[in-house]
Amino acid sequence: MNIIADLCEPTLLLDEARCRNNIKQMVKKARQSKVLFRPHFKTHQSHEIGRWFRQEGVKAITVSSLKMASFFAEDGWKDITVAIPVNTREKHRINDLAKKVNLHLLVADITSILNLDKIVDHPINVWIKIDTGYHRTGLLHDDDVMIKFIVNLIEKSKLLRFAGFLTHAGNSYYCRSNDEILELHITTTEILYHLKEKYKSLYPDIKISVGDTPTCSVADDFSLVDEIRPGNFVFYDTMQVQISACTSDDIAVVVACPVVAKHKDRNEIIIIGGGIHLSKDFIVNDRGQKNYGDLVFLESNGWSKPIEGCFLSKLSQEHGTLQVTDDVFEKIHTGELVGILPVHSCMTANLIGKYTTLTGNTIDYFDIRKDYL
Amino acid sequence: MNIIADLCEPTLLLDEARCRNNIKQMVKKARQSKVLFRPHFKTHQSHEIGRWFRQEGVKAITVSSLKMASFFAEDGWKDITVAIPVNTREKHRINDLAKKVNLHLLVADITSILNLDKIVDHPINVWIKIDTGYHRTGLLHDDDVMIKFIVNLIEKSKLLRFAGFLTHAGNSYYCRSNDEILELHITTTEILYHLKEKYKSLYPDIKISVGDTPTCSVADDFSLVDEIRPGNFVFYDTMQVQISACTSDDIAVVVACPVVAKHKDRNEIIIIGGGIHLSKDFIVNDRGQKNYGDLVFLESNGWSKPIEGCFLSKLSQEHGTLQVTDDVFEKIHTGELVGILPVHSCMTANLIGKYTTLTGNTIDYFDIRKDYL
Repeated sequence: MNIIADLCEPTLLLDEARCRNNIKQMVKKARQSKVLFRPHFKTHQSHEIGRWFRQEGVKAITVSSLKMASFFAEDGWKDITVAIPVNTREKHRINDLAKKVNLHLLVADITSILNLDKIVDHPINVWIKIDTGYHRTGLLHDDDVMIKFIVNLIEKSKLLRFAGFLTHAGNSYYCRSNDEILELHITTTEILYHLKEKYKSLYPDIKISVGDTPTCSVADDFSLVDEIRPGNFVFYDTMQVQISACTSDDIAVVVACPVVAKHKDRNEIIIIGGGIHLSKDFIVNDRGQKNYGDLVFLESNGWSKPIEGCFLSKLSQEHGTLQVTDDVFEKIHTGELVGILPVHSCMTANLIGKYTTLTGNTIDYFDIRKDYL
Repeated sequence: MNIIADLCEPTLLLDEARCRNNIKQMVKKARQSKVLFRPHFKTHQSHEIGRWFRQEGVKAITVSSLKMASFFAEDGWKDITVAIPVNTREKHRINDLAKKVNLHLLVADITSILNLDKIVDHPINVWIKIDTGYHRTGLLHDDDVMIKFIVNLIEKSKLLRFAGFLTHAGNSYYCRSNDEILELHITTTEILYHLKEKYKSLYPDIKISVGDTPTCSVADDFSLVDEIRPGNFVFYDTMQVQISACTSDDIAVVVACPVVAKHKDRNEIIIIGGGIHLSKDFIVNDRGQKNYGDLVFLESNGWSKPIEGCFLSKLSQEHGTLQVTDDVFEKIHTGELVGILPVHSCMTANLIGKYTTLTGNTIDYFDIRKDYL
């Protein structure tokens, strides 16, 4: 069956085989290093795709909001880390979740701990978010005084349990080669290992947790840490190709977009496929141009490799502008469909809000408007 | 009632009074110039807010997709322009709409006209999209041969009716003063007026249509054109302030965001409010810094003016990083809420997908996942 030929509007196509293969590879890698695999589900945000992980033996997950935790708890997940400094305003969700699941929360400052301690009425695992160099959030890894202070605050609380140290080495997104990624992986894990060593005599059960797709895709040895939390690898995207975390053959999603106009004078093709479908995330190519997605040709059973020299060069709310070569300009006609490999698949999936597999099944996605409680 | 104090997650607050005032001002302006006001509903995408326009006498609207046209047709709108080159793959929606409403579609190349003519089974108004300098899409305004060719193709069709020339002067977004905007407004309308003059002996009923928030906000005289189609003015945003199309007092939406961490070493405050809430659209400030939104303080009945020197400087999927002054750093505490004036309100509304008024009412928003047919 060729479901692609009948598509009429921007559609997020999912290659289930590639996606399941990406999951299997990461499961295998975690198993070989004997670390807990706690994948970040913010990329796919889908009950169905979550079940593909479960089929591979995954039992613990990561999410990026308390509401998303509730969404996955609904589908039977019992061990959930919310990997963003805790939002203590969501008291009802925190306590509802803590009652139902093994809940892990993050803190990055003193006030969070004090606020959290005031509102909880069930036991909660608290991780200290550590900044190993990304400088988004977390306690600076060498701020011994503050780290000790926070550990003591957790210690004093009745319901909070000190779980360990967690980082997100988002600075891996600035890497452009496997060597750079591996170097960062080593630095990051050494920092956390060192922290654990410092505290493990007092807290023998504490763990250390790392997780970002570039390092988890490129490194093989995670034996210094206790768990890994990559997320994006489930689909990958062109940003990960640029970082050298994957190849374009690993990308499991593409947006099918209708062509609605052509402009010969500047070799531009206009598609329906804008910021509300793909997001405004871009990469900068070797020639210094903004690239909002790579062009592929759709085929009956998937899509081609990226077409050399052709990319989304501009994006407005609903329109996308493809910059193409002379040759490709003649091949694509108004009224046809083209495929766009997304720059940032997490954002694209969030915008389109559902998946269509190559066999025509629709797969669910989280809905930010709903309460899930 | 202070509903703001109880909010626990990123929430799109709508100041109904400001929004209704923005609508009234534009209605008045169109009336004074005796032009048809055909507001672009892609900004608010809401049945309820659409009704606020209807209360002011608005009867014709603009949307950016056929699906959005179906959504508004459901709420009784009978005269709809889909202001993007027509996607002829959506044959079922085109014909369903053409049966129910006075449907206006755009074409920007020959193939579109040929494809459209093949699939329609009800009369449709066809506008030729003209490029007056923005170079996104449309026939170049001085390409006489091609324009004539397309007009003739429409003429030959049984069900297509030549409605006129339409442009979107998106280049107004590069303006930074009222004088620049007015100059562009004059150039744009003169180009279209000239085209109409050329064709009106053969087609006495053709119209010309312009519409973008900057020119429609700043100019007062639209008497050369037949209709205006601004959209963003319903809410405005900080991009429009930068363009000088409005002041921050006109902005009718703000995103309330919880504060989850503070980093004293760099005067940064971390909020839950990321690319999935605000979009990755940014403006560049006078100091060359990226600005993803301005900080305001939330008050019981709305919000403050933007706080000088404080803005969202970084954005990831769910986190936002506020760069603030020493003074403001001390005033804001983890666990509190702050307000962010969006850079691009159309994108922000699309992401959050519902509105909360200052009196606590929830207002609906279009859902891209649904079919609406």
